[in-house]
Amino acid sequence: MAYGYGNRIAYVDLTRRKVKIRKPRESLLKEYIGGKGLAAKLLYDMLPPRIDPLSPANILVFAVGPLTGTGAPASARGVIATKSPATGTFNDSNGGGFFTSYMKIAGFDAIVFMGRAEKPTYIYVDHDGKFHFRDASQYWGWGVFATEEALREEVGDKDAKVAAIGPAGENLVKIAGVVVDKHHIHARGGVGAVMGSKNLKAVVISADPKNPRFELADPDGFNEYNRWYIKEKIFSEEYAWAKNGGTPSIVEWSNNVGVFPTRNFQDGVFEEWEEISADVLKRFRTSKAACYRCSIACRNLVKVKDPRWGEFHIDGPEYETIAMVGGSAGVGDFKAIVSLNALLDDMGMDSISAGNIVGYVMELYEKGYLTKKDLNGVEAKFGDPEAEYELIKMMAHRIGFGDIMAEGVKGIAAYVGGDAYKFAIETKGLEYPAYDPRGSVSMALAYATADRGACHLRAWSIAEEAFGELDPFTPEGKAEVVIRLQDLNTIKWSMVWCDFIAINYEEMAKYLKLATGWDMTVEDLRWRGERIWNLIRLFNVREGFTRKDDYVPYRILNEPLKSGPPAGKVLGREKFEKMLDDYYRLRGWDKNGIPRKGKLRSLRLTKEARKLEYPA
Amino acid sequence: MAYGYGNRIAYVDLTRRKVKIRKPRESLLKEYIGGKGLAAKLLYDMLPPRIDPLSPANILVFAVGPLTGTGAPASARGVIATKSPATGTFNDSNGGGFFTSYMKIAGFDAIVFMGRAEKPTYIYVDHDGKFHFRDASQYWGWGVFATEEALREEVGDKDAKVAAIGPAGENLVKIAGVVVDKHHIHARGGVGAVMGSKNLKAVVISADPKNPRFELADPDGFNEYNRWYIKEKIFSEEYAWAKNGGTPSIVEWSNNVGVFPTRNFQDGVFEEWEEISADVLKRFRTSKAACYRCSIACRNLVKVKDPRWGEFHIDGPEYETIAMVGGSAGVGDFKAIVSLNALLDDMGMDSISAGNIVGYVMELYEKGYLTKKDLNGVEAKFGDPEAEYELIKMMAHRIGFGDIMAEGVKGIAAYVGGDAYKFAIETKGLEYPAYDPRGSVSMALAYATADRGACHLRAWSIAEEAFGELDPFTPEGKAEVVIRLQDLNTIKWSMVWCDFIAINYEEMAKYLKLATGWDMTVEDLRWRGERIWNLIRLFNVREGFTRKDDYVPYRILNEPLKSGPPAGKVLGREKFEKMLDDYYRLRGWDKNGIPRKGKLRSLRLTKEARKLEYPA
Repeated sequence: MAYGYGNRIAYVDLTRRKVKIRKPRESLLKEYIGGKGLAAKLLYDMLPPRIDPLSPANILVFAVGPLTGTGAPASARGVIATKSPATGTFNDSNGGGFFTSYMKIAGFDAIVFMGRAEKPTYIYVDHDGKFHFRDASQYWGWGVFATEEALREEVGDKDAKVAAIGPAGENLVKIAGVVVDKHHIHARGGVGAVMGSKNLKAVVISADPKNPRFELADPDGFNEYNRWYIKEKIFSEEYAWAKNGGTPSIVEWSNNVGVFPTRNFQDGVFEEWEEISADVLKRFRTSKAACYRCSIACRNLVKVKDPRWGEFHIDGPEYETIAMVGGSAGVGDFKAIVSLNALLDDMGMDSISAGNIVGYVMELYEKGYLTKKDLNGVEAKFGDPEAEYELIKMMAHRIGFGDIMAEGVKGIAAYVGGDAYKFAIETKGLEYPAYDPRGSVSMALAYATADRGACHLRAWSIAEEAFGELDPFTPEGKAEVVIRLQDLNTIKWSMVWCDFIAINYEEMAKYLKLATGWDMTVEDLRWRGERIWNLIRLFNVREGFTRKDDYVPYRILNEPLKSGPPAGKVLGREKFEKMLDDYYRLRGWDKNGIPRKGKLRSLRLTKEARKLEYPA
Repeated sequence: MAYGYGNRIAYVDLTRRKVKIRKPRESLLKEYIGGKGLAAKLLYDMLPPRIDPLSPANILVFAVGPLTGTGAPASARGVIATKSPATGTFNDSNGGGFFTSYMKIAGFDAIVFMGRAEKPTYIYVDHDGKFHFRDASQYWGWGVFATEEALREEVGDKDAKVAAIGPAGENLVKIAGVVVDKHHIHARGGVGAVMGSKNLKAVVISADPKNPRFELADPDGFNEYNRWYIKEKIFSEEYAWAKNGGTPSIVEWSNNVGVFPTRNFQDGVFEEWEEISADVLKRFRTSKAACYRCSIACRNLVKVKDPRWGEFHIDGPEYETIAMVGGSAGVGDFKAIVSLNALLDDMGMDSISAGNIVGYVMELYEKGYLTKKDLNGVEAKFGDPEAEYELIKMMAHRIGFGDIMAEGVKGIAAYVGGDAYKFAIETKGLEYPAYDPRGSVSMALAYATADRGACHLRAWSIAEEAFGELDPFTPEGKAEVVIRLQDLNTIKWSMVWCDFIAINYEEMAKYLKLATGWDMTVEDLRWRGERIWNLIRLFNVREGFTRKDDYVPYRILNEPLKSGPPAGKVLGREKFEKMLDDYYRLRGWDKNGIPRKGKLRSLRLTKEARKLEYPA
C-alpha cells in the first residue's frame, strides 16, 4: 500500500457493464506520480496507435495524484485524459472544483472508462465505493446545470459530486469538455466528446471528506508544513493578484504588451479592453470562493442581470474566457461575456476554442467567405454578442453551419477551402489561447510543441518574456525557458497542482515526501517530468506526429499586428524554425522531432519506444 | 473540351445544399487520367491533414475515367475515394455493375460530396444532369435491396442506377461499403461509413446510354480496335477461367499452395475446401452475367434455397467472399456463404473485412477472451454459419459487442487488450484479404505497402509467385514485382479498368489514344502510374504514415502455418524487412518510407510536396 494514494484503479467497461478494481504497483505510482503522468502511462500501454478517438476502442481516464484532496493549497485538481478527437494526440485536461478531490477521498487514483454503453448511462460510485450503471436516457439533451442537480437528487446525496457532459459532448462537438461542479470544466481537446461517444452522461461520486480512503506517510509533518506554506507563501504578496482580480487582471497586462487576441488575432490591442477588465468584474462581484480546501481562493462569484439573457449568479469568467469569448469576437461587453460563459458551461464547451471559432467565423463572414444564409440567418459581425450566442448554440447542437463549427477552426478551414486556412488560428487542430505569439515569441514555440496542440499551460513562458524581463521578440534562449517550464508543469499536473500555484521543485519534493514517504531530489522530480513529457511525445510520434505537425499558423508567421509594442512585426519562419531547432536539440530529439535513442535510454524509455514498431 | 471525358466535375455541398459544376482543365485530366488518379489529386488538394474522416470536413469522391462506359471490355468501373475512417489513409474503392458507367454517360468525370446533410438525404441526377436534394428519411434503416427498388420507383425511371448504403453505412461501421446495382460493392476502407456520416443514403442517376454525354477522339478507330481486342484477347483461352468458374476457381489454387485463410489464418489449407469450390458453385448456377457492356462476363448468377435463410437468386460469391466468409470462419457450406453474402450486400458491408472480423471473434471466443455473455448469447464457434449470421447482424447494427466489431479487428484488439493483437490480421487497420503471405511472401510486401492498408488489388503478385513461376518463400526480387504491379494497376484504376482484365501498357496506351487523342508511350503511362502512387504516398505521409505503419501482423511474421507447402515456415522479421528495404530503395524513398527529393523532382511533385509543411 502506497501512502498518498487510494491504491485503487477502477476499469469500467461500459460495453460489458463490468468493473474491475486493481491495485496499482507502487513502482507505477513512483515513476509516474499520478494525474497526467499516470494517465499518460495508462494511455500509452492500453491504446494501440490510430484508433478512432470517438470509437469504443478509445479510453477515457480520470486521474488524480498524491496531493489531490489533501488540503494542500491548489491541490483540488485532477485530470481527464484520452486520445483527443480534436487533435489525435494524447490529451490531458485539468480541472478544479470538488469532483476530483472526492474521487481521491473515495480512494481512487484513476478511473478508466472503456467501450461504449448501449444507451445513455451514468455511473454512480456510492459511499462504499461500489459502481452502479444507471440509465441516463431521461437526461440526454439536458444542460449541465440541470443534470447535476437532478443526479444529486436521484442518488439521494446532496453532497455528491458530479462530472457531466452537456449537449455539446452528446453531439460529439470536438470542443466539448467535461464539467464538474457546474463551472469547472476539463475543457480542452474534446474530452467531453469522448465521454459523449461512450454514451456516458455523467459520473457521480459520494464520499466523506472526514474519512478519506487514503493515508499520508507523515500526517503531522504534512499538516505542519502545509500550515507554514499557506501562511508564508499563499498569504503573501505573491498571490495578491488572486485575492484581488484573479486571472481577469491579465486583461490589462495583455493589452499593454499587445498580445490580446482581438477579432480573430487581427490585432493585439482591443480598444474596448477597459470594459471587460478586472475592475469591471469587481463591480459585479458578490464574493470570492475556493475549490476544495484551497487557500488561494481565486474564484470570483459575480451577479449579472441582462434583459437579453436573464440573471446569473455564478463563477465569473477567467481571463481566457474574457479574451476569447470577448476580444476574439470583438465583444467588449462584460455582462454579455458572463452570459455566454454560462451558456458554454451549461452546454459543456471549451470557452477558449469556442471564442476562437466564433472569431474565425465572424472574419469569414465579414470577408465574404460565408453568407448570412450559410449561417442560418445569423449576421456574424464582430462585436455582436447576440450573434455569438446564436453561433454557440448552433455549434453545441450541430445545427446548420454549427455542424461545421463543431469541428473546430481546422475543420471549418477544410470545409470552406481556398485560402481560408491562412487565418485559422490553431496548432494540431487545437485553437489558440489568448496570448498572441507575435508579441511574445516564446509562446509560438510553447504552442507548437505542447503535447495536446496549442496550449498555454504546458509552458506559460510569457510570464518571463512579455510580462517579465526577457526580450519578447528574440528567439534566443527561448527553447530553454519553454523546456524548463514544460518539465516542471508535467510534475505539477501529475501531483496534481493547480496552475495558479507558483511552486518549485524543492517545495513539491517536500510535499511529496510528507504525503508518500518517498525521498525525491529536485533532479529526481525534474527527470520524471522530462520522462513523462518524452513518453507523451512517443505516444504522439506513434500516431504519426513529427516536425510537420509542430507548426504555427500562417497569420502568426506572416501577418504583422497593427497595435501595441508588436505592431508591424511578424514572427517569421526563420525565427520560429530557429527556436524549434534549438528546442529539438536541447530535448535530445532529432531534426524531425523524434526522441533520439540516447535520450530514450537515459530516460529509461527504451522498452516503451519498442512499441513504436507496432505491432511486431 | 477533352475527348473521352464528360468534362464536368460536380461539387455537391450537402451542408449548404449547393451544387457547382466545373469544367476540369485538360492538363488535370491528362496528368491524372481519371478514377483513382483524379480522385487522388482532388483529395490531396482539398483535404488538409488530420481531419476526422467521419466529419463533414471529409469529402467523398465518385470518379470515372476515359474508358468508363465506352464498351471496352472490363471498363464498367469507377472508384469511390475518401480519407478512410478505417485506416486514416487515402482510400479508393473500385466497383463494377452499371452505376459508374451511367455517371460517365451522364457526362460526369467526378462527383465530389462535401459537408453533411442535416437529415437523411438522397441525391437524384435527372436526365438533364440536374441535381436534386431529396428527403431519404423514410429509407433510413432500410437494406440496400429495398432502397434501390424504392428509389427507382420514386424517381420514375426503371433504368435509373443507384449507389446506396445500408444500415452498416448509416451506423458508421468502419467496414461499410457503397453498394451499386444490388451486388456490386465499393467495399473496402469504409467508404459507406463516410457516406453515412454525410447523411447521404443514396445517389440515383438517370442517363441514356444511346446518348452519352462524352465523345471519343476517334470513334471508328476505337470500335475497330475494340472489336479486334475482344475477339483476339477476351475470347481467347486466357479468359477461360472467367467464362468457366470465375474467381471461385481460385479456391482450389489457394488450397493447393496453402494460402487459403482458415479459421482466422491459423491454417492455410481448409479441409472442407471442396464444399465451397467453383465446382460446387456451378451446381447452383443459373446463368452467367456481365457488367455494363463487358465482354468478359465473369459473373455467376446462382439460385440457392436454404431453410435457415430462405431463397436467393443473386450474384454468386467471388473468391474473396468464399474464402473470408467461408474459410476464415471455418464455414464449409456453400449455401450458407451465399446467404451470408446476400446479408452483407443488403447491409452494405465489405465481405473481406467481415469474414476476417468474424474469424477473429471466433478465435477470441474459443480461446476464452470473450464469453457467450459478452457476445449477446452467441456461441461463436468456428464452422457455425448461424453464429456468423448473428455476428454480422450485430455488427451492422452495432448491437452489443457488434459495436466493438464494427471498429474492425484493430479496434477489437484495442478493446480486448493484452496479447489479442497478436492474431488480429490487419495492416493500417484494414483486414487481410484471402492470400496468406506465409505461402507467398511477396503478398506481405504488397499488403504492407498498399496505399489503403492490406489490399490484394494494388499488387496481386501471388499470380507470379505461388500461382506462378517464382519461389514463394524467398524475398529476393519481390520488391521489383510489387512495384511493377502497383504502378501498372494505378493506371488501370485510373482509366478505369476492372482488375479482371490482363491488359498491358501498350494496349492501354492504344485505347487511351483512340478515346482521348493523346499520344502516350508506355513510359508516359508507367511514369504517370508511379507519379500517382507517389502522390498518394505523400497524402499518407502528410497524415503521419511512415515505415512503422508498413507492418505485417504478429501471427504472419512469427507463427508457422500447419499444412500445405508453407507448413512449418514463418515469414520472419528479417525476410520482411529485407523486402521493405528493397522496396523503399527501388521506389526512391528513404529508410523511413518518405519519398526523397530527387524522386519527387523527377515525378514533378515538388510543388505538391510543399504541402507536407502544413500550413505555412
